Amino acid sequence: MTISSVAFLGLGAMGYRMAAHLPKHFEQVFVWNRTEEKAKQHAQTYATQAVSLEQAVQADIIFSCLPTSQDVENLINSVKIKSGAIWVDCTSGVPASAQQLAAQLKQQGVDYLDAPVSGQTVGAENATLTVMVGGDTAAFERALPAMQAVGKLIKHVGESGAGFAVKAVNNMLMAVHLCAACEGATTLKAHGVNLTEAFECINASSGQSTVTSNIVPNRIFNRSFPLTFALPLLAKDTGIAVDLVREAKLAAPVIGLSQSLIQAANALAEENSDFSTVAKMYESWSKITIE
Amino acid sequence: MTISSVAFLGLGAMGYRMAAHLPKHFEQVFVWNRTEEKAKQHAQTYATQAVSLEQAVQADIIFSCLPTSQDVENLINSVKIKSGAIWVDCTSGVPASAQQLAAQLKQQGVDYLDAPVSGQTVGAENATLTVMVGGDTAAFERALPAMQAVGKLIKHVGESGAGFAVKAVNNMLMAVHLCAACEGATTLKAHGVNLTEAFECINASSGQSTVTSNIVPNRIFNRSFPLTFALPLLAKDTGIAVDLVREAKLAAPVIGLSQSLIQAANALAEENSDFSTVAKMYESWSKITIE
Amino acid sequence: MTISSVAFLGLGAMGYRMAAHLPKHFEQVFVWNRTEEKAKQHAQTYATQAVSLEQAVQADIIFSCLPTSQDVENLINSVKIKSGAIWVDCTSGVPASAQQLAAQLKQQGVDYLDAPVSGQTVGAENATLTVMVGGDTAAFERALPAMQAVGKLIKHVGESGAGFAVKAVNNMLMAVHLCAACEGATTLKAHGVNLTEAFECINASSGQSTVTSNIVPNRIFNRSFPLTFALPLLAKDTGIAVDLVREAKLAAPVIGLSQSLIQAANALAEENSDFSTVAKMYESWSKITIE
Amino acid sequence: MTISSVAFLGLGAMGYRMAAHLPKHFEQVFVWNRTEEKAKQHAQTYATQAVSLEQAVQADIIFSCLPTSQDVENLINSVKIKSGAIWVDCTSGVPASAQQLAAQLKQQGVDYLDAPVSGQTVGAENATLTVMVGGDTAAFERALPAMQAVGKLIKHVGESGAGFAVKAVNNMLMAVHLCAACEGATTLKAHGVNLTEAFECINASSGQSTVTSNIVPNRIFNRSFPLTFALPLLAKDTGIAVDLVREAKLAAPVIGLSQSLIQAANALAEENSDFSTVAKMYESWSKITIE
Repeated sequence: MTISSVAFLGLGAMGYRMAAHLPKHFEQVFVWNRTEEKAKQHAQTYATQAVSLEQAVQADIIFSCLPTSQDVENLINSVKIKSGAIWVDCTSGVPASAQQLAAQLKQQGVDYLDAPVSGQTVGAENATLTVMVGGDTAAFERALPAMQAVGKLIKHVGESGAGFAVKAVNNMLMAVHLCAACEGATTLKAHGVNLTEAFECINASSGQSTVTSNIVPNRIFNRSFPLTFALPLLAKDTGIAVDLVREAKLAAPVIGLSQSLIQAANALAEENSDFSTVAKMYESWSKITIE
Repeated sequence: MTISSVAFLGLGAMGYRMAAHLPKHFEQVFVWNRTEEKAKQHAQTYATQAVSLEQAVQADIIFSCLPTSQDVENLINSVKIKSGAIWVDCTSGVPASAQQLAAQLKQQGVDYLDAPVSGQTVGAENATLTVMVGGDTAAFERALPAMQAVGKLIKHVGESGAGFAVKAVNNMLMAVHLCAACEGATTLKAHGVNLTEAFECINASSGQSTVTSNIVPNRIFNRSFPLTFALPLLAKDTGIAVDLVREAKLAAPVIGLSQSLIQAANALAEENSDFSTVAKMYESWSKITIE
Repeated sequence: MTISSVAFLGLGAMGYRMAAHLPKHFEQVFVWNRTEEKAKQHAQTYATQAVSLEQAVQADIIFSCLPTSQDVENLINSVKIKSGAIWVDCTSGVPASAQQLAAQLKQQGVDYLDAPVSGQTVGAENATLTVMVGGDTAAFERALPAMQAVGKLIKHVGESGAGFAVKAVNNMLMAVHLCAACEGATTLKAHGVNLTEAFECINASSGQSTVTSNIVPNRIFNRSFPLTFALPLLAKDTGIAVDLVREAKLAAPVIGLSQSLIQAANALAEENSDFSTVAKMYESWSKITIE
Repeated sequence: MTISSVAFLGLGAMGYRMAAHLPKHFEQVFVWNRTEEKAKQHAQTYATQAVSLEQAVQADIIFSCLPTSQDVENLINSVKIKSGAIWVDCTSGVPASAQQLAAQLKQQGVDYLDAPVSGQTVGAENATLTVMVGGDTAAFERALPAMQAVGKLIKHVGESGAGFAVKAVNNMLMAVHLCAACEGATTLKAHGVNLTEAFECINASSGQSTVTSNIVPNRIFNRSFPLTFALPLLAKDTGIAVDLVREAKLAAPVIGLSQSLIQAANALAEENSDFSTVAKMYESWSKITIE
């Protein structure tokens, strides 16, 4: 199959940047957004076409990037998608929803891939996202050129839901690392250790994580807490991970505890807080500023 | 001060390799080991001098690399060290012991630096260790050339004990990451996800850690569990971290829980188990093999 | 409404004893069990009537006491219940299932109360059970005489699902107390304390719980571990509690951790283990026998 | 030995009431307090003798009831105690300190018993305290009449330090139960359950604890939070329990986590908060009032 038309539904911080790469690779690129103004702006800036939802779902490949699986379900249930199309859902969603949507769309001759991305806005900007994909192998291969337009590492990790599961676990690990880093930092500072030097050592050692080498110095030490990934979304994603643990009746104590802490931090945080503000809960417990 | 003589006490897996670099930089290099045979072998192989403990502590710089702070204390209390010498203790030791030894040796005109290292045997082999140093600034600067002979990143992180504290927290973070990675892996596999592909995605994403990118694939997925860092030593180091939390009367729930899990895994493990066998405890809980 | 007929579905360890009290209070008592033999035996012993399921659901009050909510759903979906009847479900079930069944049966003119019991077989024997009831207030009042025949403390705790929720949380608290008691016991014994004397003190102090005063001495210290409440059922009930936490997006770290530990202990336990064998997991971690 | 004189050092909320019973049983009763005024008041009210510390330690039995083991050590190191006396330390202290003091006093012909009490001020008032005693058996028996004057259940639980260990574990269990009860309560209320009815059910069931039957209804539900046991003291006692776990190199995850939570709640609490205000931390996480 040659892909001649691609649509992108949901032009948020990630989607807006991702969709910008598509015209370099595909003839017809449709964009759609709940607030139409954003779609028009995208069309003007990147030479895409702002279309109605009905028209968008006539594309060969339909990307979606929305806040939750519920939003995607609502969208899918409100339109008639072109038979033969592939829906590539980049939402950080719920595995069970992916399984259900894949089964439902199959009946309409449409393939559904759960294809969440990581790499933040900078990765979306540079088309260097990681895409973790669950679903039918043939559909994955057919949709690959479209995904390659926005990502660098694109992996088929299993059947429907597998992509969402990997994303949820990835974000869960990040949350664990974040809690642990805050605990380690307050402990070291309480003992008079220079945190900047200490984290340089840790980042060259076995305790390194993307949290210690990137998040802590660039968001917490410098007190910037830039809102690029909202804490409620991390609470949602870690909740999905905990639900996966429960469904499989596993024992995952560190994951469970860290999810509780994220949930508590989220309840305590001001609105529109970056996920890195979890540090502030630890600061309130220790009267120590992590800097 | 020019360093004309350097001694190395404790030729274990790390010390043996570290001491091998010293003759390239210093005229006189003494080595000493509890079992003398090893020192003689080192002398023959690397042109160092196997000497008595009494003679070794006449060097300008005296390295020690022993299992525990208790071993170092015993050694120090059994000899008369040359006044003006600097004792560089690369043991993964106890911060309170460092403070006590530094104060005690000060009285004898000897400086004590706690200078634990990370980088494993491969780092010792290539002189690319990270050295995290606590103690007097002037002593740190004087001892720096000796430390540069074995390490690459050498950081003065604070007063006496700070080096040990950073090492303990580093290993503690590693332990947290290990537990979380095992929990994440069993969860994903329970849901039919391909672990190799999943961890490739995670390693390109925010959930990455040295555990996910190195330990898990190279020790657990391939079922090798090579004994390079014994689980009881990780139990000891994480215990030091928890003691630091307690001394400062902090709340560090994720650290505390992970230390409990390491302690449990250690109790369950066969003798001479690598720290990565923590995975086996999780496997017994889930009936899932992490591979 | 006068209750003239009562049915009891599910004659397990609890149900068999509970149903035995009904003929003292009601004219017609039907019993039904998946394996018919047990119902016949009950009829002979207690002067109840062993009937078909179809006939049983023609009673004014229909008790059920089955392993899981799924079993109850299957039963309810397989029969036509008499309009005006009240279904009193004593299963330790799932709150969401109660809400769904209550709504569904309402349509058929049938009330559904979730009415799980506590008090173990001895409470069933003596009709001293505690019954925690969720559902319609009027239905609760009409069914009260039937519930009073088997229980002593009968409480209307809220709307549909509330009874199941209270039971799940009760069992969850018990699980937390059990883990804590095992941890406390191994700690004390490791320090040479006499456990029997120690628990006598605790039972007269603020640390007392039904676990410390009853479960620990009568099941663990004496190494009897009598199978009266199977560990997999505790794993199920604590799982329901954790799901309630998740649904409400709360932070409940101690509950979450204890559920993980119960899950792990369940995975490690032999088949048909009493819930008190959780102690054996702690014993494997500490090499200490809790006696 | 007939006890002819008894001293009581430390007339706080507990000690003041405990010492009041002694004149009923012993001829000479000395009282001493850091702020002398209180001792004089006690002497006037209860016909005891307010004396100097030097005189007090000439009694046959010397009770102490102070905030911490450190306070007791300071006292003991500042005086010359009568040879043959028995020091009965009712402080909630540190086991290692008891061992050290017992050994030290032995050299001066003085026995030391660690004999912490439970039962709160009401138990002190009514001489119904529980006394958990560590130390020499003969000394325990000789001091028993004095301890019976203030307590009801008096148990010899092991060697020096055992009494403190049991008290620390008791308070730790109470802390665990408190955290679990708060978590259970917020979960139930989030699902619309009536908490008063729910806790009545729990208190008649396997999830009962002194926390659920006494602390929660009498301090939290009624929003009284009466200051009878300060949160910092609970943080101290639970810390002692966690140190016992560490010294024995055990895995006690639920205890460890709960101690962290108490530590966090303590950091967040206003000064002079009762231990039951731990509930307020949970309320801040859930936006739910536990009432």
